[in-house]
Amino acid sequence: MTTVFSTFKFSPTTITSISPLNPITPHHHHHHHSPLHFSRKHSLPFTLKKTTISCSHPQQTPSNFTPTPTPSPRYHPNYIPNRISDPNYVRISDTTLRDGEQSLGASLTSKEKLDVARQLAKLGVDIIEAGFPAASNGDFEAVKTIAKEVGNAIDVNRYVPVICGLSRCIEKDIRKAWEAIKYAKRPRIQTFIATSAIHMEFKLRKTKEQVIEIARSMVSFARSLGCDDVQFAPEDAGSTVPTEFGKLISDIKANTPGIENVIISTHCHDDLGLSTANTVSGACAGARQLEVTINGIGERAGNASLEEVVMILKCHEGDVLGGLYTGIITRHIYMTSKMVEEYTGLHVQPHKAIVGPNAFVHESGIHQVLSLVISVTAPYLL
Amino acid sequence: MTTVFSTFKFSPTTITSISPLNPITPHHHHHHHSPLHFSRKHSLPFTLKKTTISCSHPQQTPSNFTPTPTPSPRYHPNYIPNRISDPNYVRISDTTLRDGEQSLGASLTSKEKLDVARQLAKLGVDIIEAGFPAASNGDFEAVKTIAKEVGNAIDVNRYVPVICGLSRCIEKDIRKAWEAIKYAKRPRIQTFIATSAIHMEFKLRKTKEQVIEIARSMVSFARSLGCDDVQFAPEDAGSTVPTEFGKLISDIKANTPGIENVIISTHCHDDLGLSTANTVSGACAGARQLEVTINGIGERAGNASLEEVVMILKCHEGDVLGGLYTGIITRHIYMTSKMVEEYTGLHVQPHKAIVGPNAFVHESGIHQVLSLVISVTAPYLL
Repeated sequence: MTTVFSTFKFSPTTITSISPLNPITPHHHHHHHSPLHFSRKHSLPFTLKKTTISCSHPQQTPSNFTPTPTPSPRYHPNYIPNRISDPNYVRISDTTLRDGEQSLGASLTSKEKLDVARQLAKLGVDIIEAGFPAASNGDFEAVKTIAKEVGNAIDVNRYVPVICGLSRCIEKDIRKAWEAIKYAKRPRIQTFIATSAIHMEFKLRKTKEQVIEIARSMVSFARSLGCDDVQFAPEDAGSTVPTEFGKLISDIKANTPGIENVIISTHCHDDLGLSTANTVSGACAGARQLEVTINGIGERAGNASLEEVVMILKCHEGDVLGGLYTGIITRHIYMTSKMVEEYTGLHVQPHKAIVGPNAFVHESGIHQVLSLVISVTAPYLL
Repeated sequence: MTTVFSTFKFSPTTITSISPLNPITPHHHHHHHSPLHFSRKHSLPFTLKKTTISCSHPQQTPSNFTPTPTPSPRYHPNYIPNRISDPNYVRISDTTLRDGEQSLGASLTSKEKLDVARQLAKLGVDIIEAGFPAASNGDFEAVKTIAKEVGNAIDVNRYVPVICGLSRCIEKDIRKAWEAIKYAKRPRIQTFIATSAIHMEFKLRKTKEQVIEIARSMVSFARSLGCDDVQFAPEDAGSTVPTEFGKLISDIKANTPGIENVIISTHCHDDLGLSTANTVSGACAGARQLEVTINGIGERAGNASLEEVVMILKCHEGDVLGGLYTGIITRHIYMTSKMVEEYTGLHVQPHKAIVGPNAFVHESGIHQVLSLVISVTAPYLL
């Protein structure tokens, strides 16, 4: 049984630590998030700010998952919710269809969502956050279709993306999410609750202990439905710089009992233009799931952009990033970017890094950008 | 007399350390840059990568500068090229009109350049890099007009921006630059040369020692014309992450004799989406001049964006950034951004941080964005 937060020992859990998570609520009302303070008594010597915590089942593989017989050597290690066999592998969780679709004017049809999900699978993302099933019938049906179609399209390397549905810490939401995602080979529920002092007091009208108990019991509830992969996200808001954000992740790793059975994740918004750097800093400090969107779309200033984060890891795998790598097939980045631009109507600026028309110098694809950044020599010689 | 690099003692100099500088050459040919290796003999224990070095006159104020009688307390300390009275003050050097204008399709008329320069002065930038006078007669005239008009419009606080002209390390270029900028109250020449091993060998066909001698003599030449404020930029290219970039600046500060009489500057391109973070990291490590553009425009993926860098410093002045501040009057950011968008035709994406239409939530100006980032509370309560 999953008992999350009951003793603050993360035995059967996965931390998905995150800067502001910005989910839509049903009917698209807005809400927000803040710091979860653990009391001394619970022996967590830091303030858990700007994080979401994701919990999933421990030393056990999901019931509907068949181990990979011959895993592809570099890409997509065998998927176990809260464990990654290669310590340098970093999961990419794409939330274009959930957080990105919340952008002003970015609404997609179900058909478009399915197209994007298929393209994300082609790109090799580890997790597709497909939507918020309790938000509307349309959202529910879109997530269900993606779970059925994209969530079952196992490729020759036995890769298939996790299909994740978002839900509040409410039984009704969690049940809806499960009903939508359960058709996938690798279904995941992400459930969130406000955890800042001000939100707990004025929005939820609960004490911290009550909020912790709700989180614990709702994760258990999700598990009881048959979902072996649950991500818990304590909502929070704030602004940070890369060194500080990395330190937050390091502190969580250093000071949380049971953290070795947990995957820490980042979810950074770009209000000050630091989301990409904060996300990479989080990975360097030990986060092994990065939540990003194509073209960096999302509410307000959007999220960390998949293409930037992935290309930074790729360009610096051999040096300062000490071997961190993702399973993204980078030659598919450009087409994915164009598809998301077209469907959402959110056009990237000419100088958008990696995918902007001025930045993307050559037709020969993303490899050109990579070599441009690394050596910048020949084309500029007088 | 200025003797730069002769002994690597920066006695009469200012280092303006930078990631790739990307200047246009006459007729808009492209060229590029790389690492300047100092030999052990010269006692610099590190490789100076991705930097430009700017040199200006030491314990002496420019001849045409009258000290401020009643300086405004927070903004724009008394301008001395290579010294800043307040250790926490960070100069903003805007290169929208030089590096930004090199963007594909961003050409501005002389009238538009003058408008932008006036707006940059209103915004309170410390240095306006106005253009590359030797590139064309049009560039020359535009810089000269800006020097005459904007470079002499001293405000009630005795603030007037430095007007900077770019030049290669060639007498003809330097003379052209001086002829254009000399009308300003605070004229500056920035001169650059390729300093990577590969460029020195194949582009310049010079040894490192020869390149150093050229740099030294061309800075002296600029001084001999009567220019007391010379920035020297060794061109270089490469890709870095914020921690590494900060360490580069710290190493320069720690290991360069005479560095205390030098202002280190950053100039970061956004090819991987890290220019803002690298720039801020540089400031934290001791850089006191940051080269940026409005909306982050510039060749390829552009430069660090003024609005992001300035707002990060403003939002975090009181905490992690330990008091660093600029003289930018942030309420003018939005209008400046709109003007540059309109004139260059380079439209920012809807989710562009700070100035994007979706990011910029409220009409009440940039202060709204600031409070949104800091507290994010009221507007999101259910």
